[in-house]
Amino acid sequence: MANPSAVTVQVFSLNCWGIRYLSKHCAQRFAMIGDMLSNGEHDIVLLQEVWSEKDFLGLKKKLAFSHPHSHYFKSGVIGSGLAIFCKYRIHDTFLYRYSLNGYPYMAHHGDWFGGKAVGLAIIQIGSLTANVYVTHLHAEYCREKDSYLPHRMVQAWELQQFIRHTSAGADAVIVGGDLNMHPQDLGSRLLRSYTGLRDAYLETSQFDGCEDGITLIANNPFISQKELGPFEKGIRIDYILFKGSAKAEMHCDWMSTTKGSIPEKPFPYSDHEALTAELQVKALRLQDPALGQADQDSKKVAELVDILTEARTEVKVGLHCAERMRYTATRTGIMGLALLILELAIAAVPWLALGAEQPFPRTSFYLLATLCCTILITTFLLYIFYTMELKSLQGAEDQMRLAVGSLQERLRGVTVDHTPLRKSPEGEEPGAFDKEE
Amino acid sequence: MANPSAVTVQVFSLNCWGIRYLSKHCAQRFAMIGDMLSNGEHDIVLLQEVWSEKDFLGLKKKLAFSHPHSHYFKSGVIGSGLAIFCKYRIHDTFLYRYSLNGYPYMAHHGDWFGGKAVGLAIIQIGSLTANVYVTHLHAEYCREKDSYLPHRMVQAWELQQFIRHTSAGADAVIVGGDLNMHPQDLGSRLLRSYTGLRDAYLETSQFDGCEDGITLIANNPFISQKELGPFEKGIRIDYILFKGSAKAEMHCDWMSTTKGSIPEKPFPYSDHEALTAELQVKALRLQDPALGQADQDSKKVAELVDILTEARTEVKVGLHCAERMRYTATRTGIMGLALLILELAIAAVPWLALGAEQPFPRTSFYLLATLCCTILITTFLLYIFYTMELKSLQGAEDQMRLAVGSLQERLRGVTVDHTPLRKSPEGEEPGAFDKEE
Repeated sequence: MANPSAVTVQVFSLNCWGIRYLSKHCAQRFAMIGDMLSNGEHDIVLLQEVWSEKDFLGLKKKLAFSHPHSHYFKSGVIGSGLAIFCKYRIHDTFLYRYSLNGYPYMAHHGDWFGGKAVGLAIIQIGSLTANVYVTHLHAEYCREKDSYLPHRMVQAWELQQFIRHTSAGADAVIVGGDLNMHPQDLGSRLLRSYTGLRDAYLETSQFDGCEDGITLIANNPFISQKELGPFEKGIRIDYILFKGSAKAEMHCDWMSTTKGSIPEKPFPYSDHEALTAELQVKALRLQDPALGQADQDSKKVAELVDILTEARTEVKVGLHCAERMRYTATRTGIMGLALLILELAIAAVPWLALGAEQPFPRTSFYLLATLCCTILITTFLLYIFYTMELKSLQGAEDQMRLAVGSLQERLRGVTVDHTPLRKSPEGEEPGAFDKEE
Repeated sequence: MANPSAVTVQVFSLNCWGIRYLSKHCAQRFAMIGDMLSNGEHDIVLLQEVWSEKDFLGLKKKLAFSHPHSHYFKSGVIGSGLAIFCKYRIHDTFLYRYSLNGYPYMAHHGDWFGGKAVGLAIIQIGSLTANVYVTHLHAEYCREKDSYLPHRMVQAWELQQFIRHTSAGADAVIVGGDLNMHPQDLGSRLLRSYTGLRDAYLETSQFDGCEDGITLIANNPFISQKELGPFEKGIRIDYILFKGSAKAEMHCDWMSTTKGSIPEKPFPYSDHEALTAELQVKALRLQDPALGQADQDSKKVAELVDILTEARTEVKVGLHCAERMRYTATRTGIMGLALLILELAIAAVPWLALGAEQPFPRTSFYLLATLCCTILITTFLLYIFYTMELKSLQGAEDQMRLAVGSLQERLRGVTVDHTPLRKSPEGEEPGAFDKEE
């Protein structure tokens, strides 16, 4: 090792595509992944889509010697699918479940049932505290008409919030996972610029892997060309990100990805390529903590404000869409109710005029009543669901507005006094009061 | 002010009981609360149960001059009910929604629809960064047979996780809210001992309020003796908590609560009493950051391990209960399905033997079929719900086990090397390897 105070940490990330009975060769692939990891090359292993706890336990048994510390993050109906295996002791964990994650009635996409989340594990690398995050965002099923875009936008927003707010005490930050976003997508930019995280692929000194670092590639036998759409060769949606702090410096020495096929194996580990990054973590002498904050200069802040404004627009589009859907559900529900009342009224008339003949055939009556009740129940559930979606979107939008305000304030370089000097009737962004402390 | 470097911050917390059309005198009470707060005595106002956004906007308008900065936290079907009004600019916000919060079919308790959460607002008090939290945990409807205890336990666990992980960068921490737990309840102890938060009521030099600091009192006209059960005078379930850091020292100079009735007003502000605490925040010279961690001596850690073990037991009880409920739902669902198949078979026999008379009266047939379908849908939804509950309980239990392991390790005073020396087949808590760095 060139630098005696530096520690080299090998980080591995893979979306395992582990849907039992649905993913091809699921059991064999997990066996292959376990065999490969058990050689103990990697210090920190971040896995996504380990949907079945049995598969996690299988890996845990296999990696008991090479990676004695592990954690499986549970959430949602099926689970988060997130797992971490580690050579370092895991001191603490925390899970944040995204407030939006698809629709329960889109069962064929299944994201809602997965309870997608971001998991945090806190480890100690020598004298340094490292926060390790693993996450998986909502899939993109159709890039041209991506109805899940606002959901993924809110997830990216919550991911950066979670990382930013929980990593204040960390000396090193490592993030791995399937973000389901291209490097230049709004969500990726938001994440990187707000947290200051650096992309291992862009930072690495040496790279051995697919062209442009793509991780969903046409060469992979589990991938159909249709999935990739206009991106013939493939797309880069899996990442290893990192950042140091005032107490630690971090570099990426080299990075590699698998390239579709695995030598001497009949098929690859997954439909995604596996990422490995060798990070060098070097403890610095304790410096003025202000140094850590100085990296966000005004140009970066201005850039961030632009990104945030764009993200707000995206979320607002989602908001209007959710409002429209809720309105449709309400209208359909009211129609169902009206139909039910009408039917009951028609049936009640001859019943009240005793002795008159029943004009309503019984079969039709019951069928219609069942239909009306089904409509009522479904629209009620949909109404509740859309209301929850609306609240989450509104919540994210509010928080973004507040963040933009605060950043603009910082750009103007003013400190705010807490005694207001003039009335601001809306109470919102009431302007700053110049006062230097 | 005795100390020129100290800042005095007045914190106010109130559960507003703001259920429109259901809470008594809701609109009048919000008007009273707005009038009282608009005198600008309080620097930070933390409100719970502001269920309607209209009420929040009403307050915002009224407090635009006294508290120009505000945030309303949105989540769930109705909302989190949490709001913050502040004289200091709010720089950043973040919301964590508890993974468990009652049952949707217990609509008369309504907690599930509220989307209970903990909200964080980051403000700047002079040169110090303060994290302000506002929260509201699941209500306790029956202390003797509290079926929501595991849910509240998980909420207390997640609350302490959220505070601990997000406050590492904060110089001062302020928490206010309705915890729905007595001071000696397991959840309260867990929260205080894991985060190091201090209870303003226990720490204050001067106190002016109800006996024993109770906040749900028999003297309040909105409270029935039945609600208080064996606690004739009342209970203390609302809190203001705080803690300093290596960079700031905090004290509580005085604290007060309302005492049921308000002079010259026909009724109190709410069914809960309002809390006000005057906190003194004093910036310290920058010290060794290790000092901040030194406050958890081994005795405290041992105490925390005990509390955590107790909490795990509580969560396990909830786990067994949820498993039983899911099993019942599954069994009922299977019975519904069997009944439906049987009915269809009986109806199909004469239909297959053409010309034979239909033995099944049509009305009964349709009624029975509707019943079966309703059972199937309901049990399916219940199954999904209980699975989510189970995952959250398991997740909390796993995290608690890991935390206990790490704390026990710390008690033994050993540093763990990352190269395992002996095989640990379960991969869990594989023992420590003595190595001093």
